[in-house]
Amino acid sequence: MTSLATTTGALSPTDRSTPRRSSERARSDRAALYDVLDAALVCHLAVVVDGVPVAFPTVFAVDVEGPDESGTLYVHGSVASRSLRAAPEAEVSVTVTVLDGLVLARSGFHHSMNYRSAVVIGRPRVLTDEAERSRALDLLVDHVAPGRAAGLRRPTRKELVATTVLALPLYEASVKVRDGGVDDEPEDVRAGGVWAGVVPVRMTGSDPVTAADVVDVPVPEHVLRRAAELR
Amino acid sequence: MTSLATTTGALSPTDRSTPRRSSERARSDRAALYDVLDAALVCHLAVVVDGVPVAFPTVFAVDVEGPDESGTLYVHGSVASRSLRAAPEAEVSVTVTVLDGLVLARSGFHHSMNYRSAVVIGRPRVLTDEAERSRALDLLVDHVAPGRAAGLRRPTRKELVATTVLALPLYEASVKVRDGGVDDEPEDVRAGGVWAGVVPVRMTGSDPVTAADVVDVPVPEHVLRRAAELR
Repeated sequence: MTSLATTTGALSPTDRSTPRRSSERARSDRAALYDVLDAALVCHLAVVVDGVPVAFPTVFAVDVEGPDESGTLYVHGSVASRSLRAAPEAEVSVTVTVLDGLVLARSGFHHSMNYRSAVVIGRPRVLTDEAERSRALDLLVDHVAPGRAAGLRRPTRKELVATTVLALPLYEASVKVRDGGVDDEPEDVRAGGVWAGVVPVRMTGSDPVTAADVVDVPVPEHVLRRAAELR
Repeated sequence: MTSLATTTGALSPTDRSTPRRSSERARSDRAALYDVLDAALVCHLAVVVDGVPVAFPTVFAVDVEGPDESGTLYVHGSVASRSLRAAPEAEVSVTVTVLDGLVLARSGFHHSMNYRSAVVIGRPRVLTDEAERSRALDLLVDHVAPGRAAGLRRPTRKELVATTVLALPLYEASVKVRDGGVDDEPEDVRAGGVWAGVVPVRMTGSDPVTAADVVDVPVPEHVLRRAAELR
């Protein structure tokens, strides 16, 4: 995958995306943002639909060589989808969350999750330029399965018309990371008798299941690699 | 875990939560909702903060014996958190998403994910009743690690004051499920030459890591069970 971690620059150009609490969990460097975006398979696009904020799960991709100096986040969906129709008229946000562990403390209060999470805020741009749309769609496929887009046919005119792609600059974002072990009250540690620790969790893949109508095509290297990475 | 699947009843009492597209992916039964809620470790709470819809990852729990006939969804967080402070004044939503597979088609257009996702909409209630708060906090711990709450000390007054718990009735919800194999264009299947299939994915756990300051307490059964379930 593209080495996202090499791009640098401060996040949170405005106050609203500057975390006000749990500041020990906040990360202000761009490398932390790219790390979360690299690790996640899907994002949640938050938009207001009929007056109610709703988060929709969807695939995404990052373009470090896109039109925005800070990098560009692409999300896509059907032209008919309510989430994407509502989006361009107002500011929206995209949340990406990666779970790393269950933090099981000696008290309910100190139970937590280890996670990495990023929120990107901005006014999305609907892609109209054919070249940018085509590049974004390839990146969306390659985010799910790196190396896959190059071996596919080009989208048809009908497919392009049916797909909305939104671009959000990776300009304003906040990143939170909770890692490490349990953070218990000293008196609970002294009292003893209760187990505490972390159960690491991660998204894993299993053996690719070839479609029944595939004839004489072995599982390609990029698919095997992806399944192994997620293992 | 509580057998959620036994509760029945229609979802989508109003039009806005009735899916308008991808209707083949929509599920209208309550069992499908409980299945998603059972399978997920975290949710995304969508609220409007400073005019922008934002989805925050957080833990949640379901109470089928709670005050709402349709079941109650609890989310919690710090009293100081922006997401929870903003919530009670307006309708919010909670999205729960479980990823099941990468659907790798012969065209970029038909790439997809296998997933189960639920959106619950409502005006949240801030829990003030001590008994309900206490029960909700136990359920939140047990959602992450079933069976754990019973072995923990009760929350202190200070801890209770510092925690906001929101309740959302499981009354208005929409559920979407995409499962099965690749759905390619017939001409792409006929053309051949491109592999297609599904890479199953799931959240898995690994061996519990005991905190360094735990003395003479073995890993409890409920933790081993949880780690194994997520395997």
